[in-house]
Amino acid sequence: MTLDADQQAEIDAARAETRETGRATVPGLEAVLFQPFPVLDHGFVRVVDYMGDDSSIVQAARVSYGRGTRKVSEDAGLINYLMRHRHTSPFEMAEIKLHVKLPIFVARQWIRHRTASVNEYSARYSVLDREVYIPAAGHVAAQARDNKQGRAGALDETEAAEVLDILRADARRCHDDYEHMLNQDADGAPLDPARSGVARELARINLTLNTYPQWYWKVDLHNFMHFLALRAHPHAQYEIRAYARTLLDILDRWVPVTAAAFREHRLDGAHLSATALDVVRRLLAGDTVTREDSGLGRREWNELMAVLYPHDGSDA
Amino acid sequence: MTLDADQQAEIDAARAETRETGRATVPGLEAVLFQPFPVLDHGFVRVVDYMGDDSSIVQAARVSYGRGTRKVSEDAGLINYLMRHRHTSPFEMAEIKLHVKLPIFVARQWIRHRTASVNEYSARYSVLDREVYIPAAGHVAAQARDNKQGRAGALDETEAAEVLDILRADARRCHDDYEHMLNQDADGAPLDPARSGVARELARINLTLNTYPQWYWKVDLHNFMHFLALRAHPHAQYEIRAYARTLLDILDRWVPVTAAAFREHRLDGAHLSATALDVVRRLLAGDTVTREDSGLGRREWNELMAVLYPHDGSDA
Amino acid sequence: MTLDADQQAEIDAARAETRETGRATVPGLEAVLFQPFPVLDHGFVRVVDYMGDDSSIVQAARVSYGRGTRKVSEDAGLINYLMRHRHTSPFEMAEIKLHVKLPIFVARQWIRHRTASVNEYSARYSVLDREVYIPAAGHVAAQARDNKQGRAGALDETEAAEVLDILRADARRCHDDYEHMLNQDADGAPLDPARSGVARELARINLTLNTYPQWYWKVDLHNFMHFLALRAHPHAQYEIRAYARTLLDILDRWVPVTAAAFREHRLDGAHLSATALDVVRRLLAGDTVTREDSGLGRREWNELMAVLYPHDGSDA
Amino acid sequence: MTLDADQQAEIDAARAETRETGRATVPGLEAVLFQPFPVLDHGFVRVVDYMGDDSSIVQAARVSYGRGTRKVSEDAGLINYLMRHRHTSPFEMAEIKLHVKLPIFVARQWIRHRTASVNEYSARYSVLDREVYIPAAGHVAAQARDNKQGRAGALDETEAAEVLDILRADARRCHDDYEHMLNQDADGAPLDPARSGVARELARINLTLNTYPQWYWKVDLHNFMHFLALRAHPHAQYEIRAYARTLLDILDRWVPVTAAAFREHRLDGAHLSATALDVVRRLLAGDTVTREDSGLGRREWNELMAVLYPHDGSDA
Repeated sequence: MTLDADQQAEIDAARAETRETGRATVPGLEAVLFQPFPVLDHGFVRVVDYMGDDSSIVQAARVSYGRGTRKVSEDAGLINYLMRHRHTSPFEMAEIKLHVKLPIFVARQWIRHRTASVNEYSARYSVLDREVYIPAAGHVAAQARDNKQGRAGALDETEAAEVLDILRADARRCHDDYEHMLNQDADGAPLDPARSGVARELARINLTLNTYPQWYWKVDLHNFMHFLALRAHPHAQYEIRAYARTLLDILDRWVPVTAAAFREHRLDGAHLSATALDVVRRLLAGDTVTREDSGLGRREWNELMAVLYPHDGSDA
Repeated sequence: MTLDADQQAEIDAARAETRETGRATVPGLEAVLFQPFPVLDHGFVRVVDYMGDDSSIVQAARVSYGRGTRKVSEDAGLINYLMRHRHTSPFEMAEIKLHVKLPIFVARQWIRHRTASVNEYSARYSVLDREVYIPAAGHVAAQARDNKQGRAGALDETEAAEVLDILRADARRCHDDYEHMLNQDADGAPLDPARSGVARELARINLTLNTYPQWYWKVDLHNFMHFLALRAHPHAQYEIRAYARTLLDILDRWVPVTAAAFREHRLDGAHLSATALDVVRRLLAGDTVTREDSGLGRREWNELMAVLYPHDGSDA
Repeated sequence: MTLDADQQAEIDAARAETRETGRATVPGLEAVLFQPFPVLDHGFVRVVDYMGDDSSIVQAARVSYGRGTRKVSEDAGLINYLMRHRHTSPFEMAEIKLHVKLPIFVARQWIRHRTASVNEYSARYSVLDREVYIPAAGHVAAQARDNKQGRAGALDETEAAEVLDILRADARRCHDDYEHMLNQDADGAPLDPARSGVARELARINLTLNTYPQWYWKVDLHNFMHFLALRAHPHAQYEIRAYARTLLDILDRWVPVTAAAFREHRLDGAHLSATALDVVRRLLAGDTVTREDSGLGRREWNELMAVLYPHDGSDA
Repeated sequence: MTLDADQQAEIDAARAETRETGRATVPGLEAVLFQPFPVLDHGFVRVVDYMGDDSSIVQAARVSYGRGTRKVSEDAGLINYLMRHRHTSPFEMAEIKLHVKLPIFVARQWIRHRTASVNEYSARYSVLDREVYIPAAGHVAAQARDNKQGRAGALDETEAAEVLDILRADARRCHDDYEHMLNQDADGAPLDPARSGVARELARINLTLNTYPQWYWKVDLHNFMHFLALRAHPHAQYEIRAYARTLLDILDRWVPVTAAAFREHRLDGAHLSATALDVVRRLLAGDTVTREDSGLGRREWNELMAVLYPHDGSDA
């Protein structure tokens, strides 16, 4: 993550100023407001604004006239009840706004979540910085064989080093040529007065997918958790999971009671199919069940065994 | 509007408490936070929470690191530019949450706006108060002849009085019977121990459409203004327009610069069709144009004339 | 369900006409196209149009150039895989459009599903028929004690009969008064030339919530199944469940492979929380687990036992 | 546009097969079903499925039991009325599904339209073809000076040729390296058995933004037109406008009456602000109005003059 002095000064100025409000306020989130949380090699997530806290969920569920809270245990009970029974609308009643710097290939996965608002720093309008994502050597992995869209173990050192060299060289050359085609310096003045420079909206098509743009992203708490359930999942690509882990930390700070209920009922729970439930029932009745007579496919069987017997070693 | 003592005490308690925040704050909205604005005979709108102010729009449009504001005139210029060119995403970056009490027939129009979050006080779960909307005598109007879904002038006094008597009597009887079928007092104890009482979710089907439920409604600024453009429009039914007018007052308090741009470019502007534009061009060229040779239908012609010559009397 | 002769003739005419198309076609759905499926006492659901079939899901998942199908077993495997891993976007690629007649209190629950399109027959514009929902005697139930928004057993005959009398009488009177206030016959001519009649948008506020309006409702297959998962659920009110059951029949006709996967992985599956999973693991390890040391609340424990031991009697 | 023999054969097979249906059918669209319309150098748009026609809009607006149509002129009148008064819900009642091949930088603009469904051919899962967008020489333009996100005139031949050489060389090298890092041939076998090859989800980050992926895109008619209003607009980037023009041709084939109303009331109409309306009124009253006393900024004044006096030459 690389902030220049102006950016850091803007952040510091924003953090220095506070005001009185009658709205719900979260001290744990106020403490980190505007501060960048680093992600990957050049990315970050900053909390820019938020609306509501745990009490806002119970207040909305009760359609209260006042703060709407009762005893802490009653409020937590209601939040768990709502989460368990998938009463999602009260969780739409809190909102968060983030400033995110992320590689384009991550941004393309992220934007598939449609129930959010986005303002991207436009490369039609502005020149992008020379920042590209280069994975750490340990994340340069081979194609998984059993999962057509996953990674297997890390490549050997030599091949990984070659991959990193290629990624660096191609990104550097593409960015050099981007700047050359634009033919303008940081202030928009021509580098070479004999050339016109091509329009920004065209020059950018030469950039590689590991380039870092940035955007403001605003989402309600329900859809924030839905994003996390999909993107913190082991099937998600490592790079977007890195962002999801940071968002999960932010969730813990923002709405600790809701975050605990989310882990209990979503992240750390499991959905069992009708056939999987039948297997569980037969096992509880003392029957021996094999994959062959379970009615489950190989992958679903393995996943079920990993859920039921988590300490039995690998789930392969 | 009728708040009982408990409700008023809850509101007062919420208003008494303030905290420090680093977030954008709007003094004009803080001043009325939680307070009910009365609408119609028993309805209200209360601002329960909000996120962002005028500066949040420019901050998001610029994807800023800090507050994102520059000179006041530059910020206003940017907001007007965004509004004029229908760059809507920055206006999604502010959010408001309201507590609204409104008749069911208004709620059914309101809910058609899908890009918002709602928590309604459920009549499956709770018993509704005895409050129904009875129009003021001056609003008891005849069916419009030229507009199949509008009102003409007020009915004469006798017929209006009869209508009001009917509305009152039927609502009273339906509510009496609702309570009788429920067979429970305010604390849920049976009124008549010999009877079971019917389930709340069934008893409520006897209520009339002018009964007042209430809900929490949360929406972003862009969709808030879209709601206003449709529901503050003269074609909207009087009763929902009464709410829209109150929301427009709240908009003025919340984001005065955006509200002015919204009036300039939306509410007080006009959309002209290709043929209407052609009429304007011919008029400017000094031609005489009649409805017959304008290519416009009667209604569109009348609407255009009312836009072009607003002081020429009625638009009939 | 009551169709008049004109409506039946329109339906017959629509059913009589067929055309050639290159699009995916479902014979089982063509066979019932436009025909009303009766629901409750006056309601219905009609399939008015549809787009896509089971093969459209695999075609979209594979981004195919042609029909996109392979062997039937491979296609079914892919559909199950997508359903199990909640890859929802291919299921958005099929669409259905229904004409539904339903009581207002059901319509208000239905409309909360925002990811659908609706055109309602407007009572601002037209006069509503004299049709109201009166439950069958066996569905007139008492308030549940353990579930604040549910029904317990049926009321005794005398009390149920009284409830039905009240519902009928109040609905009849309200509708009589609605027509009286409108002061117009079926052709819009005044009943009493001495009176003006009140505007339709006002007269309708006197109707009760069991009145039957109707609408066109269009939704994609993913959101159709999401609707079913919530509204065919035992916690849903009986009356909307009656519609959900009919929609489930339509799902079976339309996309039989997807419908089977939906039952396997959603309707007949179960979601277990982290703590519930822990109980299952302890039980499988041969431990005795009581509710007290399970870490689960009473309701969640009962629900878990009902899932694990479905033949052990009541879940109370 | 480059289809291989297998793809062409799949399309031919799909086109050869027809079935009977009772649904609304559009002969003009059936005639081109599945056929690719070429866009840019390697892109295309194919109509893969559709639901509804012009009559579906009137049918939904009238909540009809049958086809819902009346005289052609009445139906066209209703469609124009709905379009003029922005009654958008009937236009949501028709749907279209397209297969689109488009450069990534275009896809990133396109996906900002959230009210649509998308299935993209995933580069996590499959290897992308070697196809990149290289603009025609006449479209290699300089940065506009007066519009920070637009293009001015074409570059001179020498500079344009250099830009094209750079784009071609960088894309070729990045794709070569992509294939090298993947280390697999078309069947997934290793090119060099001594190397593992890197996971597809990582290798793809080396591709440039002019690479062509493809997706299925499904949208309702209302949102299709909203997309066109924004993306066929002169302010949109040339490359997405090229797609929008093809979509507009498809609109004309699909729903000719709606398409004409869309041009009349949206594409070829204009929205005037309150101040612009005031200028028009003063001009019609015979006043002389200058930009300085108009109350309009320079750009809005120029745009207004271009609307009012389209034949007066340039709008600069």
